[in-house]
Amino acid sequence: MTQQLKNVFETEQWGRFEFRCKGPEMMGNPFTEVRFAARFESGERMVEVDGFYDGDGEYCVRFMPDTLGKWTFETVSNRTELQGISGRLNCVEPAQGNHGPVRVDNTYHFAYADGTPYQPFGTTCYVWNHQGEHLEEQTLASLRQSPFNKIRMCVFPKHYDYNLNEPELYPFEGSLDDGWNFNTFEPAFWQHLEQRIQQLQDLGIEADLILFHPYDRWGFSRMSPETDDLYLQYAIARLSSFRNIWWSLANEFDLMREKSMSDWDRFFQIIQDRDAYQHLRSIHNWHNPEIHYRSNEHWYDHNKPWVTHVSIQHHDLNFVPEWREQYGKPIVVDECRYEGNLNHGWGNITAEAMTECFWKGMAFGGYVTHGETYVHPDNIIWWSHGGELHGQSPDRIQFLRNLMKDMPQLGATPINFKWDAAAGGIDQQFYLVYFGQSRPAFRTFNLPEGKRFEISLIDTWNMTVSQLDGEFEGDCRVDLPAVPYLALIFKKIESI
Amino acid sequence: MTQQLKNVFETEQWGRFEFRCKGPEMMGNPFTEVRFAARFESGERMVEVDGFYDGDGEYCVRFMPDTLGKWTFETVSNRTELQGISGRLNCVEPAQGNHGPVRVDNTYHFAYADGTPYQPFGTTCYVWNHQGEHLEEQTLASLRQSPFNKIRMCVFPKHYDYNLNEPELYPFEGSLDDGWNFNTFEPAFWQHLEQRIQQLQDLGIEADLILFHPYDRWGFSRMSPETDDLYLQYAIARLSSFRNIWWSLANEFDLMREKSMSDWDRFFQIIQDRDAYQHLRSIHNWHNPEIHYRSNEHWYDHNKPWVTHVSIQHHDLNFVPEWREQYGKPIVVDECRYEGNLNHGWGNITAEAMTECFWKGMAFGGYVTHGETYVHPDNIIWWSHGGELHGQSPDRIQFLRNLMKDMPQLGATPINFKWDAAAGGIDQQFYLVYFGQSRPAFRTFNLPEGKRFEISLIDTWNMTVSQLDGEFEGDCRVDLPAVPYLALIFKKIESI
Repeated sequence: MTQQLKNVFETEQWGRFEFRCKGPEMMGNPFTEVRFAARFESGERMVEVDGFYDGDGEYCVRFMPDTLGKWTFETVSNRTELQGISGRLNCVEPAQGNHGPVRVDNTYHFAYADGTPYQPFGTTCYVWNHQGEHLEEQTLASLRQSPFNKIRMCVFPKHYDYNLNEPELYPFEGSLDDGWNFNTFEPAFWQHLEQRIQQLQDLGIEADLILFHPYDRWGFSRMSPETDDLYLQYAIARLSSFRNIWWSLANEFDLMREKSMSDWDRFFQIIQDRDAYQHLRSIHNWHNPEIHYRSNEHWYDHNKPWVTHVSIQHHDLNFVPEWREQYGKPIVVDECRYEGNLNHGWGNITAEAMTECFWKGMAFGGYVTHGETYVHPDNIIWWSHGGELHGQSPDRIQFLRNLMKDMPQLGATPINFKWDAAAGGIDQQFYLVYFGQSRPAFRTFNLPEGKRFEISLIDTWNMTVSQLDGEFEGDCRVDLPAVPYLALIFKKIESI
Repeated sequence: MTQQLKNVFETEQWGRFEFRCKGPEMMGNPFTEVRFAARFESGERMVEVDGFYDGDGEYCVRFMPDTLGKWTFETVSNRTELQGISGRLNCVEPAQGNHGPVRVDNTYHFAYADGTPYQPFGTTCYVWNHQGEHLEEQTLASLRQSPFNKIRMCVFPKHYDYNLNEPELYPFEGSLDDGWNFNTFEPAFWQHLEQRIQQLQDLGIEADLILFHPYDRWGFSRMSPETDDLYLQYAIARLSSFRNIWWSLANEFDLMREKSMSDWDRFFQIIQDRDAYQHLRSIHNWHNPEIHYRSNEHWYDHNKPWVTHVSIQHHDLNFVPEWREQYGKPIVVDECRYEGNLNHGWGNITAEAMTECFWKGMAFGGYVTHGETYVHPDNIIWWSHGGELHGQSPDRIQFLRNLMKDMPQLGATPINFKWDAAAGGIDQQFYLVYFGQSRPAFRTFNLPEGKRFEISLIDTWNMTVSQLDGEFEGDCRVDLPAVPYLALIFKKIESI
């Protein structure tokens, strides 16, 4: 994407510009002792971004321009050889399919930077990027055929039931046996991670990148604060120019007993300070405080200003309206149990239940993330390793995604659709009502006065849509087939 | 049951002895101005019970002897004609099937007075007794074929959706149009109610009698405190000698805005004071305080000493262990939504879901009540009117009841059967583990050291029991068919 001509470059808007140069011969540690950054200017704007040492004597700085036109840049360093190198960057129209990074839109929703709506249909493959070439390519092929446009994945490898293999690469120099040199990153690890993030980007998939997690035998969950911070800065310098990056501070942060709330606050602040593009930031929990209606002591306060959206693990999607109200931010339920038949309680729900989570969460104006955990002869389980999808929910999630593409962003609705239904909409215009396992034989509605509606009946499991005969207004009755997993879509009929 | 010979009578233990006599010709109100009671003595025991005016100049006092042998009695009145009449009562062995009234047993459970275990398998037909002869007899015939041994039913008629008919009888003299004479009871109403309670007793069914409820167009939910108290005293005088009576102070007490917590306390105390037999007492809620993890302001404090067991409306049976711990009393979830296809959210769950509620609640050491709400051409719906059962859950509830007959009373177990399963048992001896909609392909268990167990696999939906091959001990793995609605029963193998 980048063409060089006497330090004159061209990059598409929200593309990734990369400027590399050889650094000085040195005895010290190029990761910690060499500062390398660059200032990019366009008109009155100046954006400074950190560069990083990429091994083999090479330093690199990356930049994702967000506005069209001419940019100039100049490197900043504490080494003469790397200081004051300047150049020009022409930012051109984005290529087809490049809509920029995803931002919060309309308080509870998301859109790409160019305004295109983005509705997250996430999946979970925690360490698919640690499984070696064959399986990783298979995962990408599966994702290409899937409904998913977001993936939760970890920087660090994972140690847990079904996750006992060693990865090929580690983020730091060293080994499990000999210990890690936490001041020396392993560029090959990061280059590999970047390759995978880029491949996701090519598939239109956002990488919800998990920076810390508790499932660890290598010590990456128990690094010193100085190492944590260095690691974050290096990750930001390398990765923030990928437009499809989201920062998930942790998976199940509250299981990382060594870290305090103030550590998490500090991590958020480091990212907020150093990510020039302000990619989305969230943190993901293990505890459910309200299941025993006790205190919120283990619950991160998503109201803090550096949290862009609420990433929640919870099995009960009925809380989505409450969380919306409580936080005034997009709600993404990034784990609500997984479709499968695993021995573990969080990994053996039916495809029907997984699909129900999606419909319920979405109807309430939130978003939901998929995962799959079927027992496999070689212990290759989508939730962690990627590989192939075996379940029945992805087709239904694709069906929902297709439908939602044509829906407005859903908000809370003043119409009382009764508590057994999940419902959202745009008042007086559009309503989505999902009945889940409830199966009424009929329903009465009290539609807004003076408006006529057409109603479509959706069988969310059998993936059919049928428009009901007639028009509906005021107090009206709708007969239903009295089977589970139905939804209704109400659309106002525009007067001609 | 009662034979007279010069005021010498015979009644079986926990049977109902009734002594009637004509009262004085009077101008005043025999319901309020005539005191009529009787003292029953046996050895050093003396039990005083209130009698009541039954119309046609006749006064009646009833007594349920709880110990075998000779009793004497003497009436007490403020009228000469009714004062000091004495007699003898011989209390003989109870007939087959008469186990006495149900009591709390072993903190969390129930047993009949003779020690026979009683496990409530309740159903709900709120006003079946207000539907006229034909339907009421049909209800009794349905109950006879059903798994149910407890029924929730109201004294007062019900006004609500699907409940708009007038009853044939009212508890007070008067009419809806002309108003009620709250000082004058209608004996025919009460005689009819007693007939139905007796018929339930003949079927081995406990009458969980709801004394107040909010669904009212007649004014019975908004009577004065004096009328409430008079009504309670009259009901106790008439009904407490029925051994199958349970006092449910209210259905959804918290919807009766006219009544305060102190009213409910007073009602409990009146019953505690006047019911000589101390039948079970509870109160039933509408609100679920913890669904929005807020305060308990609408939740009756079931710790109060006059509450014998906790009667709860709640859709989530996962709270049963918490309620057991909180109250230290039997937990009966007397409404967790109903099997059916009604337009209302509380009345359209599947038979699978209804059955799941039973298994889950019971596995956690609680008890659960059934209800059924299928749309019907004549609006005859089991939940309120009785009639016929149409659903698929009663057969499964019967299957569970048959199994539980051979189980010990279930308590909390220290074994961690994982949070997706409901489990209870007797430590080191017996465990019931229910997986509900979770469908693991296998499970590992950590059974108590040095004990061997046999395991039965239950398909709770298809109603099959199959014993697994072999014996199980210590850390062991159990392969499962990976379908929903399975349970396992672990029984310690006794050494020979």
